Amino acid sequence: MQLLKDRIIKDGNVKPGNVLKVDSFLNHQMDIELFNEIGKEFKRLFADLNITKILTIEASGIGIACIVAQYFNVPVVFAKKAQSINIDGEVYSTKIESFTHKKTYDVIVSKRFLNKDDRVLIIDDFLANGCALVGLIDLVVSAGASVEGIGIVIEKGFQSGGEIIREMGIRLESLAIVESMNAEDGTVVFREDAR
Amino acid sequence: MQLLKDRIIKDGNVKPGNVLKVDSFLNHQMDIELFNEIGKEFKRLFADLNITKILTIEASGIGIACIVAQYFNVPVVFAKKAQSINIDGEVYSTKIESFTHKKTYDVIVSKRFLNKDDRVLIIDDFLANGCALVGLIDLVVSAGASVEGIGIVIEKGFQSGGEIIREMGIRLESLAIVESMNAEDGTVVFREDAR
Repeated sequence: MQLLKDRIIKDGNVKPGNVLKVDSFLNHQMDIELFNEIGKEFKRLFADLNITKILTIEASGIGIACIVAQYFNVPVVFAKKAQSINIDGEVYSTKIESFTHKKTYDVIVSKRFLNKDDRVLIIDDFLANGCALVGLIDLVVSAGASVEGIGIVIEKGFQSGGEIIREMGIRLESLAIVESMNAEDGTVVFREDAR
Repeated sequence: MQLLKDRIIKDGNVKPGNVLKVDSFLNHQMDIELFNEIGKEFKRLFADLNITKILTIEASGIGIACIVAQYFNVPVVFAKKAQSINIDGEVYSTKIESFTHKKTYDVIVSKRFLNKDDRVLIIDDFLANGCALVGLIDLVVSAGASVEGIGIVIEKGFQSGGEIIREMGIRLESLAIVESMNAEDGTVVFREDAR
């Protein structure tokens, strides 16, 4: 998605340790106009799948998922990190390791909001090692529902998550795949630009 | 907002300990059509304020804030709980006590996303004791920006948050104010219904 790649080039910031900061428009401050363009693109890519529900994980996936959901006319469910006293006992749960925060979370979804008839589109802002996505897929499978597709805004193509998910046979669409980046000169190379 | 009150009566669930569960449409599964009606209502209520930015706090405020932002054509910034290694050092920070989770969070916003010219509308799903809102107001004040208004979906009118905020002289609009509720028979009484 060219608009997104242009925005990453313009406003993204490459930091040491393969960190791509896009917090001015994607995951801290959020550009809702851009999110709407992202929503239209995911609708174009997944139009044929009769999606009944969008699933994401707190926190930074929620805003994108809600805007995207407008193009599918379906509710959004977000998986929650750690048990809250406001969640009923009846939940699907999985464990997700976060390298960013260096800990393992219990992640839950109420059984009332995922059922075997659901055709689920998973939406998230980033795909790197794939731990979060594998956890979300596990929640959907636990419910007997189907993962019809996964829509990612930015995939770090040099990490293993994309390959893991694609090898599972799941339709994964990433709107920008970063092939490589360089913290010294700030450059970002996208997959189709790579030779 | 009658549509919201009707939905609370229909799908809300009163639990012991003054817990109102609205997780089937507001803060776990999210009804995006309802969020759009909420967005239109906040726009009607705050139309005259020349809002430049919407501020909320992760996680459950984010979805509502993003949909509401479409009616104001402004970006959303969400305050983050606890320091992430992906956040630059330059942040405004405050502490917020969560009674739900029985702990105190450090809550931060990057200094790049709030500045003295911003006219901020704060959006959140719930107002109870007001701790989260007081923290968000503190962040805005730290930036030298102005809190033009606060839009809340559900206020627990029997807790002190609403009074605290209104006594600060800040324009607070809650789309439904729960005056009382009863876990035994499941009834919810809204403020204008109270005698």
